[in-house]
Amino acid sequence: MTGPEIERLIQLLAKLPGLGPRSARRAALYLLKRRDHVLLPLVDALKVAAENIRTCAVCGNLDTCDPCSICADEKRDAGLICVVEEVGDLWAIERANAFKGHYHVLGGVLSALEGIGPEDLNIARLAERARDAREVILATNATVEGQTTAHYITDRLAGARCTVTRLAHGVPVGGELDYLDDGTLTAALRARRAV
Amino acid sequence: MTGPEIERLIQLLAKLPGLGPRSARRAALYLLKRRDHVLLPLVDALKVAAENIRTCAVCGNLDTCDPCSICADEKRDAGLICVVEEVGDLWAIERANAFKGHYHVLGGVLSALEGIGPEDLNIARLAERARDAREVILATNATVEGQTTAHYITDRLAGARCTVTRLAHGVPVGGELDYLDDGTLTAALRARRAV
Repeated sequence: MTGPEIERLIQLLAKLPGLGPRSARRAALYLLKRRDHVLLPLVDALKVAAENIRTCAVCGNLDTCDPCSICADEKRDAGLICVVEEVGDLWAIERANAFKGHYHVLGGVLSALEGIGPEDLNIARLAERARDAREVILATNATVEGQTTAHYITDRLAGARCTVTRLAHGVPVGGELDYLDDGTLTAALRARRAV
Repeated sequence: MTGPEIERLIQLLAKLPGLGPRSARRAALYLLKRRDHVLLPLVDALKVAAENIRTCAVCGNLDTCDPCSICADEKRDAGLICVVEEVGDLWAIERANAFKGHYHVLGGVLSALEGIGPEDLNIARLAERARDAREVILATNATVEGQTTAHYITDRLAGARCTVTRLAHGVPVGGELDYLDDGTLTAALRARRAV
């Protein structure tokens, strides 16, 4: 009884991560009740994004320019390449404001289960870029797939002159030991450093 | 570093109920990565909704036609008016497929805290409609505000010839007594019926 237009909107909203069918319905109602203040601005923002955002041909980041503003930034160290799985990971590192090199977005991880092989990821281009780099930092997730992908890339870059490093494992800042899993504690102990 | 276009999109998505700043970021990324399959169809669906969906002048429902398809449906009983707080409640009752009368959407509830008085709700129009109705069913939520609003409407309709009823309180179908609150149990006991 909600009509095909509203049903279609609910269906599309339900595809977004974090929204299920029920919350999509609430979101659709919210939008319809706030036509001028939220719905129309959202249409504009989505249109602008669809028209202007593209994937950087160098690193795989999303931006309005290609090469992206990070690759084009001459103040950043081009000899340092941080390899991440997804653009969201790049955003997370940028938010931390602790890295001033370049990035390389793989676009996923190797997964035998999902049939994702090296040719499905942005790895060949990374091998090219690594030739001119000083250091490649592997910042894939600390999951089985992320670590497998990191190992694969390490092997693949074995011939290059650059150093290959990976993010440190250890106790999260602010974390309590009592709540940490054994794997993290073991890794933190093994990687202990002199004070 | 995500650029003003993406930031604006994230900000707008974060306004949706059920999405916080973090999940809005994930949703924005999801959309940008699925430009043709999700982003552009969503833009279309939102545009269609913004252009075509309006509020029914009779009952307050949202539909592409005015009066809405429920008010215009001659097979439905116009003598029976079900009063709900929001369009979402109307949708819920329609999904249950247990009511074939007309609706009246108040657009909220009376709330002294939020300064919402009777003149802010769609109540005057209800009083008019009640004159030609046989029965007005109060289906506001079983919250303090919902019940206050129901009481107010009952007083307001005291002069009308129609019967005023409200939804039964009781044990939810499939619910276990052990998990029910005292208020519901008391209401269910008081409203017990002969088998």
